[in-house]
Amino acid sequence: MEFDPAERPVDPSRNPPRYPVDHVGIAVRSIEESAPLFEILTGERASPRQSLPEHGIDVCFIGSVELLEPHDRGGAVGRFLQAGGSRLHHVAFRVENVRGELDRLVAAGFRSIDRAPRPGAHGGLVAFLHPRGTGGALVELVEPARPLSAP
Amino acid sequence: MEFDPAERPVDPSRNPPRYPVDHVGIAVRSIEESAPLFEILTGERASPRQSLPEHGIDVCFIGSVELLEPHDRGGAVGRFLQAGGSRLHHVAFRVENVRGELDRLVAAGFRSIDRAPRPGAHGGLVAFLHPRGTGGALVELVEPARPLSAP
Repeated sequence: MEFDPAERPVDPSRNPPRYPVDHVGIAVRSIEESAPLFEILTGERASPRQSLPEHGIDVCFIGSVELLEPHDRGGAVGRFLQAGGSRLHHVAFRVENVRGELDRLVAAGFRSIDRAPRPGAHGGLVAFLHPRGTGGALVELVEPARPLSAP
Repeated sequence: MEFDPAERPVDPSRNPPRYPVDHVGIAVRSIEESAPLFEILTGERASPRQSLPEHGIDVCFIGSVELLEPHDRGGAVGRFLQAGGSRLHHVAFRVENVRGELDRLVAAGFRSIDRAPRPGAHGGLVAFLHPRGTGGALVELVEPARPLSAP
């Protein structure tokens, strides 16, 4: 049965979110194999591969997708892959003040993985919340290097 | 060690993505339990719970997050929860023409779950891509009910 777009109701409650999604992290076995798929999917070009030795991973951004490839099986992302193959790993929300948000959320009972914000892959500041406090999702807060109001 | 934000490099390649993330779906055992957590996290109010009997789930939006609670253990989301508890379920990208994008991606070798776009939770048109073709992530394409250029 065809669906008539003219009949689609518009939900007036859908304003732009205060916590927009900055990107979604996907754990993969191979950036080299997966990046071309997401280039086709999104029409975006993959960024150069970036090594984050302190996390034991290489990362690559394709638009709103971050691919995470572990250096070995022992790190957090390596163990995540061992447990269930390539899949969604985390969701990152864009915030204006990551330090303030982290304080607010810890005070509200959320469990932080990072005690203080730290540099992220794109030059922003980031902090992670533990899945145990969010109902199962690994959540990253990202304060971009550019002001949100920049053109 | 403190990190000086003034030293953060700005990545000039980070333009707004062509395929922005519309929302992230999280499978949960109980919307009633999980929604308040995401209300605190995002500062958004949860939408009224919506039943999608054809998918065997109830859904609820909190900003950019969609919570999915299965009606029973037998459906797709119910089986997903059984396999690994509450966790990220899918990522949805916003597109202007879901039918055209679905055709383009299937022609490029992606595997669609939906043969044609169908009505989504917010009155938009949606279509899902199978994780097998995306390297492990369940991907939804969303054409919002409102034009992207609307105020």
